[in-house]
Formats: sequence, C-alpha cells, structure tokens
Amino acid sequence: MSNRTGALGRYLPWLDWGRQYHREWFANDMIAAVIVTLMLIPQSLAYAMLANLPPQIGLYASILPLVAYALFGTSRTLAVGPVAVASLMSAAAAGHVAMPGTPAFYEASILLAFLGGAMLVVLSLIRAGAIGNLLSHPVVSGFIIASAVLIAAGQIKYLFGVSAKGDTLVAIIASLSGALAATHTITLLIGAACLIFLLAVRKYGKAALSAAGLSPRAADIAVKAGPVLTVIVSTLVVSLFNLQTQGVKVVGHIPASLPSLTLPSLNLAQVKSLLLPAFLIALIGFVESVSVGHTLGAKRRQRIDPNQELMGLGAANIASALSGGYSVTGGFARSVVNFDAGAETPLAGVFTAVGILIVTVAFTPYLANLPQATLAATIIVAVLSLVRFDILREVWNYSKADFAAVAATIIVVLTAGVELGVLAGVILSILLLLAKISKPHIAVTGRVPGTDHYRNILRHNVIQSDSVLSLRVDESLYFPNARYLEDALLALVTERPGVQHVVLQASAINDIDSSALESLESIETSFKDMGVTLHLSEVKGPVMDKLRNTHFLTHLRGQVFLSHDQAMKALDPAIAADAASQP
Amino acid sequence: MSNRTGALGRYLPWLDWGRQYHREWFANDMIAAVIVTLMLIPQSLAYAMLANLPPQIGLYASILPLVAYALFGTSRTLAVGPVAVASLMSAAAAGHVAMPGTPAFYEASILLAFLGGAMLVVLSLIRAGAIGNLLSHPVVSGFIIASAVLIAAGQIKYLFGVSAKGDTLVAIIASLSGALAATHTITLLIGAACLIFLLAVRKYGKAALSAAGLSPRAADIAVKAGPVLTVIVSTLVVSLFNLQTQGVKVVGHIPASLPSLTLPSLNLAQVKSLLLPAFLIALIGFVESVSVGHTLGAKRRQRIDPNQELMGLGAANIASALSGGYSVTGGFARSVVNFDAGAETPLAGVFTAVGILIVTVAFTPYLANLPQATLAATIIVAVLSLVRFDILREVWNYSKADFAAVAATIIVVLTAGVELGVLAGVILSILLLLAKISKPHIAVTGRVPGTDHYRNILRHNVIQSDSVLSLRVDESLYFPNARYLEDALLALVTERPGVQHVVLQASAINDIDSSALESLESIETSFKDMGVTLHLSEVKGPVMDKLRNTHFLTHLRGQVFLSHDQAMKALDPAIAADAASQP
Repeated sequence: MSNRTGALGRYLPWLDWGRQYHREWFANDMIAAVIVTLMLIPQSLAYAMLANLPPQIGLYASILPLVAYALFGTSRTLAVGPVAVASLMSAAAAGHVAMPGTPAFYEASILLAFLGGAMLVVLSLIRAGAIGNLLSHPVVSGFIIASAVLIAAGQIKYLFGVSAKGDTLVAIIASLSGALAATHTITLLIGAACLIFLLAVRKYGKAALSAAGLSPRAADIAVKAGPVLTVIVSTLVVSLFNLQTQGVKVVGHIPASLPSLTLPSLNLAQVKSLLLPAFLIALIGFVESVSVGHTLGAKRRQRIDPNQELMGLGAANIASALSGGYSVTGGFARSVVNFDAGAETPLAGVFTAVGILIVTVAFTPYLANLPQATLAATIIVAVLSLVRFDILREVWNYSKADFAAVAATIIVVLTAGVELGVLAGVILSILLLLAKISKPHIAVTGRVPGTDHYRNILRHNVIQSDSVLSLRVDESLYFPNARYLEDALLALVTERPGVQHVVLQASAINDIDSSALESLESIETSFKDMGVTLHLSEVKGPVMDKLRNTHFLTHLRGQVFLSHDQAMKALDPAIAADAASQP
Repeated sequence: MSNRTGALGRYLPWLDWGRQYHREWFANDMIAAVIVTLMLIPQSLAYAMLANLPPQIGLYASILPLVAYALFGTSRTLAVGPVAVASLMSAAAAGHVAMPGTPAFYEASILLAFLGGAMLVVLSLIRAGAIGNLLSHPVVSGFIIASAVLIAAGQIKYLFGVSAKGDTLVAIIASLSGALAATHTITLLIGAACLIFLLAVRKYGKAALSAAGLSPRAADIAVKAGPVLTVIVSTLVVSLFNLQTQGVKVVGHIPASLPSLTLPSLNLAQVKSLLLPAFLIALIGFVESVSVGHTLGAKRRQRIDPNQELMGLGAANIASALSGGYSVTGGFARSVVNFDAGAETPLAGVFTAVGILIVTVAFTPYLANLPQATLAATIIVAVLSLVRFDILREVWNYSKADFAAVAATIIVVLTAGVELGVLAGVILSILLLLAKISKPHIAVTGRVPGTDHYRNILRHNVIQSDSVLSLRVDESLYFPNARYLEDALLALVTERPGVQHVVLQASAINDIDSSALESLESIETSFKDMGVTLHLSEVKGPVMDKLRNTHFLTHLRGQVFLSHDQAMKALDPAIAADAASQP
C-alpha cells in the first residue's frame, strides 16, 4: 500500500485507496458486495438468534458497522459483521445481568458492543495493538473449537423444535435429553433437510457446479449461497402449508424499519459488571480479525496495521451500538468470500451495508415465516468448519506444554462457559511461558579438541578445566529466571570445590532486566564469599551498553572477555597449553 | 552441605546437620539464641501491635514456628518469626473481614497463617519453588519500601498518644492531622526519647562501643540490644512515676500462660475471602526468606532448596496457627544477627524458642507497663532501614520499564493498600516482560567486507544483497512476539519489492512455541503468495529437534543452512563472487 497521503492516511486509510479508486474496482466491489450480502442475510438473522436477540438486531449490526470499518480499518477485504463466537459470548455476558427476551437483555447486548468498541478505540489511541499478543495461537484455536461445539450443541433444540437451555455443554446435554421426548416432527424434518442439504452443498456443491459448466472460482462462490437457498425454500414451504400454525417455530414479524440512532444507557453498575466480558469479546474479535486480515492482505502484498485495526473494529462496534446492533468483528468465512469474489476496497463493505439496508426495509416482511430450524442448521454447518482437530493434534505433537493450555481452555469453556475459558487460557499460557523462561538451559561446556569452540559436556567429547567452570546460558535473563540462575550457579560451584573461576558465555543473552542484574550482583557477592571469581564472555553490544555504569559491572572482580576461548585460555594455563600444542 | 543421608535428608534437613552436631556448635548456637531472643522480645510485641493483635500473640508466633522451621527448613541461620511487612498485610487482610480487637479478627489472623502455611506446604509437595519467580526483584523492593512507609506512618499515632486510623497513606495522614491536636505530651516525650535513642544507637552505637573496648563484631551485635534497653528503661520509668494512670498507653496485662494448641475454625466463607491475601502474605514472605537464606548461605557455601523452604515456612506458619500465633516468615535483620552472632544450625532457633517460652511464662507480668510509644519507636526505626531509595535510583538508571513497575507498586500500596499493591506489581511486571518479549530486536544484516560475519546494517558498514534479505532475530519466538515477527517480516518484504529470498539467522532463538510455529507457517504461506522464499540458518540443535516433522519444516520451500554466510553465498551470486574475490 503506497503511503502518498502520509500520516493522515495512516489514520484514515480510505484517503489512500480513495484517490486511486477507478471504475474497474467499482465493478469488482459491487459484485463482491452482492455475494456477501446474500451470505450475510441468513448469517445476520442466525447469529442474532444465537445471541438471544430479535432477528432485526443482526441486520442492524450489518449496516453501519460496515461503513465505520470502511472509514477506519486497514484491511481492504475484511468483512465485518455479526459472527458466531462473539454472538455466543454476547449471549453469555448479557445473560449474567438480564433474562433473554427482556429489554434489559437487549440493552446489555448493546452496551457490550459499545464498551468493547470504546476500549478498542482507547487501545488504538495508546497504540496498544500488541494487546492481541496476550493470547497464544493454540489458546485461541482451543477457544474457538470449544465455542463451536457449545454453539452447535445449543442449536440442536431448534432443529428438534424443543425447549432447552444451558451455558455449558453438560447443562445443554442434560436439558436436551429431557426435552427430546417432545420433538416436533415437522420442525425436525425441515431442520434435517436443511442440514443435509447444506452439508451436501459444502461437500459436493463445488464439483457439481463445476461439472455443470461454472468456473471453479464461480462454483466456489456459488456454494456460499446455499444458506440463502435454504432460507427461501424453507420459508416458502412453511408459508404454503401454513406450518407456522402447526407448531413450527418461525422468526416471526421483523419490523421493516431502519434502526434509530440512540446512545446506550450507561448504568454504572451494569457498566462495571459488563466491562470484563466486553473486553474479552473485543479482544477475541480483534485477534481473529487481525489474523484474517493478515492472511488475506499477504496474498496481495497489502499490510494490516494492528493499531489502526483496533480503531476500525472499535468504530464498527460503537457504530453498531449507536444503531441498535450488537458486538461485531471480522468474520473469517465471509471475508474469504469477499476476497475471492474480487473485493478491491472496503467500499465493497459499504455496498454490502446498502444491500442489507435494502433487505431490512423491503424484504423483512417475507421472512416472517422463516423457520428457526433453518437458521439453526445454517449456524451448525458454519461452526462445524471451526472444529479443527488437526490443530489440536499438531499442538500435541509439537509441545505438550502448549497442549495443556489448549486442553485447559477447551475444558473450561465447555464446563464453565466462554468467559472463564478465555481467562483460563490466557492465564495458563502466560504461566507456562513464565515457567519456560524460568528454567533456562544452562550448559556446562568444554573445549572441542583442536578448535576454539565450546560445547555442552553432556553432548560432546570435550576438554574440561578443573579450576575454571565454563558455562553457557541459553536464554535472556529476566525476573522469572533470575533466581533460578542464582540457584543453578551457586549449586554448580558448591558441587565443585576446586573451581576458582566461572566464565559465563553470554552469546545467547539478548536482555538482562533489573531482577536479573540484582541476581548477577548477588551471584558476584556469593562467589566472593566462596573465593570464586565471575567472568563474562561474548556479551552482546546492546546488553553491554546497558550493563556499563551499573554497580554490577563496576564491582565485578572478573573480566568481560570478547571471546569465550580467549577467557578460558587466559584463566586456565592447561587449556592455553593444550591450545598452543595444536596446529 | 553434604548429602550423606540421601533423599530423606532432603526432606528432613536436620538429619544431615544433626549427625554432625558437636559441642562447639552447641555453644555457638546458644550464644546466638540469647542475642536473637533479646532482639525478638520487643520485636514480637511490637509486630503483634502492628498486626492489631494482643502482644502475647507475637510471643506465641515466636515459639513453635521456630521449632517447625528447624525441622523442615534448609537455611542454617534463617531466623523465623513475626516480621513487619507480614504483620501489616495480616492486619489489612483480617481487617477486611472483622473489626480489630474482636475475637473474629484474631481468628481471621490465625486463619491467614494457617491458610498461607497450608498453601506453602502444597506448593512444596508439587515442587513449585519457582512460584517465587512471579515477583520481580524491583517489584518486591518497591513493595517493601512502600510498606515500610505505610508502617512508619501508621505508628506515629502511638508516638503522639492519639487515635488515628487508615489503610492508605492519605487516610493515615488525614486521620493524623485531625488527631494531633490531642497529642499526649508525656507519651510524646517517651516516644521521642526512645526514637532518638534508637536512631543514635544505630548511627553511633557501634563506634562508641568499639571505642569502649568491644570488638567490632561484639559491638555490632550489642547495638541490636538497643530496643531491649528502651523496653526496660521506659517500662521502669512508667512504673516508677505511675505514668499509665496519667494517660500513657501501655501494652497492659499479658497472660503469663503458654498458648493452647487448637485447630483454626474453618468457616468456608471466611476461608474463601482470606485465600488470596493469605497467598500473597505467604508468597511475599517466601520470596523474602529465600532471598535472605541465599545471601547468608552463600557466605558459608551452604545451599538453600527453594522447594524445601516452602515446606519449612509452611510448617512454621501452620505451627504458628495451631499455637495461637499469626503469619511468620524469615526476618532479614534478625537472621543477619543470628548469623553474625555465630549460629551454626537451626538449633539456635530452637533455643531462641525456648528463650521466648521462658519470657512468656516468667517475664510477661513485668511488661504490663511497657508504653506503646516505645514499641512504635522500635517499629519505626526497624522499618526505616527498609526504605532504600538507592534501589529505586539504581532501577531508574538501569531500566525505565522496570522502574514503571516499581513506581506503580509503590503508588498502589500507598494509595490503595498492600494487597492491591502486590497484585498491581505482579501483573505489571508480567505485562512489561510480555511487552519486552513481544518486540524482539530484528536486525537487517549485511556482510562485513573480508569476513564471513554478518552485522546490523544500521551499525556497521556492510555489503547488502538486493535480492536476498538477511535478517537476525535476537529473541526466542514465543506467543507474545509471534504476531510481531509476522508483521515485521511481511513489512520488511513489502517495502523491498526486489527481494526474492529471506534468510533468517536463528542463532539467538532458544525456543519456538506453538504460536510462533504457526506464525512461521503463516509467514511461509504469505511469502509464497508474494513469490518470496524463506530460508533459515544456524538453527540451534534443540530447536531443530523440535521443528523436525512439523508441517512448517516439511512444507518449507527454502533450505535450512548450517551457517548464515553459506546461505547468503548460495542464494546471491554477487555475495559469492565478492567472497571469492577476497583473500
């Protein structure tokens, strides 16, 4: 992305692409917008249902937020709107403060979007795009997998036309198992038909359409219209046979009016209790959006600025709240469709907004007989693609510690709910990182005969010195490992009464924080009491710059050697003699 | 410390030193015990007052806990008992659930010790000695400085004989400023006299006693008896002139009985609300104890095992709770005196316990007229030595980020109390560490002419390649920097349209976690879309072991080179030609 508009273009990215805008882009953006609109209609209705909100709220969340993101977001192709995981989280959080279906619940959902948006804007202003780094990839993966399972389980009641509830997998299953006896057969038939059709389209649709003469890309995009087809057909079927009067639950009357712009009611007690969930919804949404934005941007050598993305998503959520919508973020599937359909700029999003606007004012009366079972089938098929066990297997193979964090996240999400699940995952991944850092690899090294290299005595056949202990620390020195370093060095020296010098090879030490500096001082003091001198070798430039003028370095009795070999030869005549005897 | 007793000696350290015990050690331990007992009498009374508890509770906390630590602790010279900071924290925590002076408050204080002790024992059993690493040194320093200020401020009311209260510095000052009009003159005279005497002893005592003929070491130890002298003299003065009837507040009747052994009452609601403060008191106490133990142990080449220290301190706190005492830990000043006085083994602690026991049953009646102002003066002088601004200056000079964590800790302790202060410090130091790790130094490097070394193009005059981007990352790759790496690499390549290959020199990468692996995969995919090939060089053995068999390495289109120079020469003919043209 060129940067002709300078600093301002950084904050208002449309200044950049806006002046280059031309006719071909317009055509491409329009085509993409039509396709995304078709995809978004059933999704916005379905995710509103998932968020325990009336269907029009999903439509409201798909108009202004898209315009706001187009103004401030940096991704050219990210498709913002209601998504499954944020809808589930919103339902759970609002459910803590009000009963679903009440005005208070709706207000809480709006407030969640507003608070989340405001926090994202503040984070953007303080350039805290790095906040997304609090979440490790495996934890996010685990969270999404578990959320998808929860979401799918929660939709089963609509497929069977029964009543059930629960925020955890156990509660949902328990509630369902009691309710399934009252299964409504016609509803189940509609739901099962939709589900089978959608799964079939997903699996065979592309091949079938290609065989029918469509280009692979067109076929790929066309299958995304599957949900729209189920919406139309099932609504028609219900209307024709008046099935809504026979107990098939439908979405009912959707007001064909535009959202009215209002400020959310800022009740302080409610703000306080929604602050943490709002933050978690916003954080998860941000991490997912940036990840999608990156993936798509890279395909066209376009860059995403995480700090500016905070602003784009923050503005989108505030716009959603002000226009009666709920939490939004960049959706993965929808963005890929937008990209594949040829969207060139965020104007495609604006056109999509216009599309949803038209649907809202003109087509909602026709959706009154849309069965809830159809939407449930849409949701289930959409989230099933999020359940990727291959990610779990990969993490398991690569790192058992990381897998523990994922497993904990999944278990907590399924048994205690989404919020505690994210928190558990975040805390556990930080603790595991601290644990990893806290036990750095410290190798006792020896001289590889005939070279000036020093290697781990446990792995190589090397020459060791009796009086000089040669060590290498393979980690930066930070507070989590400061005391470990102290313990380890004192233990190594205590075990070797003959040692008079210790040389610490610092080539892998990229930073030393204040705690570690204090530990080095304390090691130096302890060594002094033990009659041992501490030396350093191969200290990196930036680390040396920091150490200069510190109490530690001015009081260090030993030397700082440029190379480890030089240190060993200077301190142990035997090593020097051995080195000299070699060619 | 020899390890003749093997595994059992690890869990019962006295098996080790017990079998070597001999007569000389006995004499030394006895002398140290007498001196520490003299120091501990005023301290145990004063710290109990600080913890808002009756004076005998301080004595109870100085008997059985010392015996328990002697059985399980690994430090030979750590002197366990009530300390200032833990007393302040205990008062604050118990104050949340009950009014000082009530039986409920006393019970809560005992419960805090019990819960803290139990947690330490559990942590010891799961070998979680690394838990102390959650606290960075500067945060601990800042916490102790701020606590000392809070403690000193809180004692001023006793010096002036007025009533005041408050958990924060602002509250204490506000309360005091209203109360000082009612200053009790005789109390202030006694308090000021004690304070001046103690400060003078601290400053000139050693020199004076040395001049009077004492050896420096004896003089050093003798000045520690200053507080005992103020206790005796001020109690005599009050008794002689019957000042307690004229409004001088005294400690009053201390029951001359031994503590009765009882189980703390485990009310579930109270346990729940005291769990976090109990953990924080135990954690701070553990960190301080281990630090003191290390410092003293190193002077005699004796080792401290943090895992076993958890057991020692845990047992001490449980013993304290069972015998009616409150939270204890290893005190810095007291341990140094114990060490300097020649203590050889923890038996010195057992002898000290016997000393306090004798005081409790035989001498407490004489302490009824001990003025509270004397104890306040003792506390103030003791904690003033903890206020070390030099530490703050050092941290400021060394690292502004670390200083921010210290400053936040101090401000939160002073304005919002000790518990929030520790939490703020812990959270902030972890966030700062994540922030540090999250922006690793990534250098674009070039070839130093005439060598096979590659250095930062910003710092050195080097040869760069147009088509091959040479990079070095100076940090292990963990989830906090995974996305940054992705952003940085994509940005570097996007800025350089001519680049066809990227070589990442991995010599400073000690570990790669699952998140970073996923980022590497995503970089590889993005590079593929951009027509750029990613290569690695100088990957460490353990990292390579982990990467083997991963999706990333099997799908990597580039190569893994043993040396960076080899990579550059293989990928850019210009570099190879330049290298060949050199001697």
